[in-house]
Amino acid sequence: MTYNDIFQQIIKKMSFLCIGLDTAIDKIPVHLKNTEDPVFEFNKQIVDATHQFAVAYKPNTAFYESCGSKGWASLEKTSKYIKENYPELFLIADAKRGDIGNTSQMYAKAFFETMPFDAITLSPYMGRDSILPFLRYEGKWVIILALTSNASSVDFQVIQEKESKEYIFEKTLKYGQLWGTNDQIMFVAGATQAYKFQLIRKIAPEYFLLVPGIGAQGGDLNEVAEYGMNEHCGLLVNASRSVLYASEGTDFAQKAAEEAEKLQLEMKTILLRDLKKHFSRASLKNQNKTKE
Amino acid sequence: MTYNDIFQQIIKKMSFLCIGLDTAIDKIPVHLKNTEDPVFEFNKQIVDATHQFAVAYKPNTAFYESCGSKGWASLEKTSKYIKENYPELFLIADAKRGDIGNTSQMYAKAFFETMPFDAITLSPYMGRDSILPFLRYEGKWVIILALTSNASSVDFQVIQEKESKEYIFEKTLKYGQLWGTNDQIMFVAGATQAYKFQLIRKIAPEYFLLVPGIGAQGGDLNEVAEYGMNEHCGLLVNASRSVLYASEGTDFAQKAAEEAEKLQLEMKTILLRDLKKHFSRASLKNQNKTKE
Repeated sequence: MTYNDIFQQIIKKMSFLCIGLDTAIDKIPVHLKNTEDPVFEFNKQIVDATHQFAVAYKPNTAFYESCGSKGWASLEKTSKYIKENYPELFLIADAKRGDIGNTSQMYAKAFFETMPFDAITLSPYMGRDSILPFLRYEGKWVIILALTSNASSVDFQVIQEKESKEYIFEKTLKYGQLWGTNDQIMFVAGATQAYKFQLIRKIAPEYFLLVPGIGAQGGDLNEVAEYGMNEHCGLLVNASRSVLYASEGTDFAQKAAEEAEKLQLEMKTILLRDLKKHFSRASLKNQNKTKE
Repeated sequence: MTYNDIFQQIIKKMSFLCIGLDTAIDKIPVHLKNTEDPVFEFNKQIVDATHQFAVAYKPNTAFYESCGSKGWASLEKTSKYIKENYPELFLIADAKRGDIGNTSQMYAKAFFETMPFDAITLSPYMGRDSILPFLRYEGKWVIILALTSNASSVDFQVIQEKESKEYIFEKTLKYGQLWGTNDQIMFVAGATQAYKFQLIRKIAPEYFLLVPGIGAQGGDLNEVAEYGMNEHCGLLVNASRSVLYASEGTDFAQKAAEEAEKLQLEMKTILLRDLKKHFSRASLKNQNKTKE
């Protein structure tokens, strides 16, 4: 998938919503518990009900691993189901891996060959060896943790370097751009850090940002868009719990769709309002093409 | 498992060897390919043949994930087999995870409840949220990436902080000691970085170090011991490929045992030589007890 493919989907759906499939076995509605694979069944129904409002899905590997090999099978089935039925969706493995070169190759094989993910989140602590092996796959993406949404992101990410006075997350943004193009690399930037988005955009104006942290974690969508949007939108904003667990009953998928639609409508308002401000003539032209 | 349990095993076996189960499906001897679970069968025979020379085993999750849910099942079987048959061995999941709090809980469940690992390697980029949820499990360990063995460890780990002039890996060592005791936390320090072990030991004298990078990666065992050993040994030195793939034939387990024994004998020499230098009277007393 290319940068432009993702942008076209955003324009077509008037949405930059990513739905995080943090599917916890103990939060699945009771009536699904007797199906063969409750986690997959839950995911399938969520995706079927919400796909018109979202451009990306992001299963979080931890939730699947907590169920053992059965959980890993649910992850495989989920990823295959999404890519077979909705190939236009951008499918992210929220795995936050990061290792030496020969191990990174194995992770790339796991997520890009054995499973059909378009992208994987990676931690930069071990440097480029953790990133480059994934970039050998054409059309695949890595999403590097830069400034994350959690409270203890301050422990390391905002340490300032001696000479340059740059924050660690700035170094991440700069290295990332040396390692790959904006057709290969995105960065994670937490919605709870929206006040730093101006700085992030100054350093990496053309790259997509994957933005977790709205909803349960307290980030604000309008603030994220205000400071983080670029002329090709450049944002994938994630919601997980607020969508997945909108209802505990048999209507869970319908309620999830309502929550997703609410977010999509907010995003549409933002996109239409900010088109003038952020979008280049080129992108407006693309938008008109799509409407025809 | 406690700090002292591990030390006692080291003294008993005169070894601080950790064997990395980086089991690549395409490197498994042909005669195992027709077994029900070749990866598990390979691991089982390796562990059965080498366990008297090693104190720890370290499956690397990437290699299992590359085979999908079948691979994850091999990881489960391997971890259970080791803890059931050799409960004295220290079992490390080399997973290098690192996420926000509620996700970290899920990873802890995966490795400490669903599977019987004693320890997991973790990346500190997202700060304490990635570490603390694992420490709620009594007797379990986290092993935090500090200064890794790979070339691009320099990208972030040796960045110096503005005020303190400390390297990032020094911050990791200092934070880690605030987060947990030396009965809960170890650090990864690559054998290729042996010249920095004096500094590491100055900062964290009492903590165990997990040391990858001897063998294929070029690190030197004697150098590691010279600068890294403390009075309770404080080292788990890992070898993977040199042991696992010592032979491609039906004698692979026997050849692996020979390689492991070679390393164990080197370690015995080092332990006996350095007892005088590093070991306290208390540890010498323990050693005599074991011999009786």
